[in-house]
Amino acid sequence: MTYCVGIITKDGFVAASDSRTNAGYDQVNVCRKMHLFEGVGDRVFVAMTSGSLSCSQSIVTLLRKDFEAGKGLAAVETMYDAARCVGEQVRRVSEQDRKALEQDGFKVNVHVLLAGQIRGRPHDLYMVYPQGNPLRATEDSPFLQIGECKYGRPILDRGVRYERTSLEDAARYALISIDSTLRSNVTVGPPIDLLVYGKDEFTLDRRRRFPDRDPDLATIHVQWEHALRQAVQALPPVDFAPDPDR
Amino acid sequence: MTYCVGIITKDGFVAASDSRTNAGYDQVNVCRKMHLFEGVGDRVFVAMTSGSLSCSQSIVTLLRKDFEAGKGLAAVETMYDAARCVGEQVRRVSEQDRKALEQDGFKVNVHVLLAGQIRGRPHDLYMVYPQGNPLRATEDSPFLQIGECKYGRPILDRGVRYERTSLEDAARYALISIDSTLRSNVTVGPPIDLLVYGKDEFTLDRRRRFPDRDPDLATIHVQWEHALRQAVQALPPVDFAPDPDR
Repeated sequence: MTYCVGIITKDGFVAASDSRTNAGYDQVNVCRKMHLFEGVGDRVFVAMTSGSLSCSQSIVTLLRKDFEAGKGLAAVETMYDAARCVGEQVRRVSEQDRKALEQDGFKVNVHVLLAGQIRGRPHDLYMVYPQGNPLRATEDSPFLQIGECKYGRPILDRGVRYERTSLEDAARYALISIDSTLRSNVTVGPPIDLLVYGKDEFTLDRRRRFPDRDPDLATIHVQWEHALRQAVQALPPVDFAPDPDR
Repeated sequence: MTYCVGIITKDGFVAASDSRTNAGYDQVNVCRKMHLFEGVGDRVFVAMTSGSLSCSQSIVTLLRKDFEAGKGLAAVETMYDAARCVGEQVRRVSEQDRKALEQDGFKVNVHVLLAGQIRGRPHDLYMVYPQGNPLRATEDSPFLQIGECKYGRPILDRGVRYERTSLEDAARYALISIDSTLRSNVTVGPPIDLLVYGKDEFTLDRRRRFPDRDPDLATIHVQWEHALRQAVQALPPVDFAPDPDR
């Protein structure tokens, strides 16, 4: 399983991903799911993938080959075109592998999160479905998730706002969202990759990999659980009225 | 969809359920999913159901008919036998309806949470699967959920402990867990039924129904979101080291 989340705010975006892959319950490996496209000056992209690792790798390989040749993501004019460009490679790999996978009961199910900015254009965040079509994050829905989404969603629903959430807080929300997922699902696991991008920066330098038992992540984990317990105890007690059907 | 949660601690148990049922997206109704069995002095039970409303109703109807005749749940000697008794009715309804449902593409998928106590025995919490077999909550896993479980799970994982959590706090955790689920899934909805049982009480008086826009529940919702935002902002800032691959 996988959990990746992208958060967009007026100031930039945050991307975070886990690194656990498993085929069945016993073949568990570590694999980076966050892929950076940078170094051409006028644009940066980060892509995160969930679903079949083989298909995901193929998609990223094809995207990177084009990017390095000055085509594909290196040549598109807008983030919408970039999302479409990713969708084309999703469809290409799907066409190539679907028949062989499906005849053995596997599904073609790669989701891609794509965040980025092209100079002179706004920063943006998209999800590309396994069918290749793109969905854009909006001011009302300023985060997108792929993989094991549900455990990490409530904290994002409660806290993340496009206009008001600072990038620093968005990074904390992303880490807590991933930490919540790790806590509840063993098939999502470290290292955690985290990237923060401020609009118009055009570098992807603010990134960090948190390995298993990273002391900073452990501090956040412990402090967060402590804060939650205190917050629960600070809630008003439940008043049980004499008439329960009032 | 449905969300029900049972929490057991050394001091008793807490049960909480939503009340929304839907067949498709437009046929949405309110239905109580918490069923009380009491009034015979030496035992109390609370059953909560998820899955097909028709099958759930049949199961509860059969359980109640036996209970009122001094049989079934009214006659079992242990909570394990009580869970088996529920399982028998789950299997009975499954046998009766499965063929007709499956030929039209519906599944027999009723889960039941059963909490209770029989005098002279410990209080206990079970889940009964659609196949009728029971699973008991333990000191290491002191809560059980049915229906839309994932959104409401992280807060329980972080906070609920069999030995340490007070019943008052367990009630707060149950409400927050349900509130988180309501926030993220529109097919789970109010009224919320909440019941708190202290061991050896043998009455089910501490219960309350929170309707839509209940002011106390609204207070908890607002105070909780505020506390979460403050807790996020109190976390240490993420330190982006110069070498991201350290």
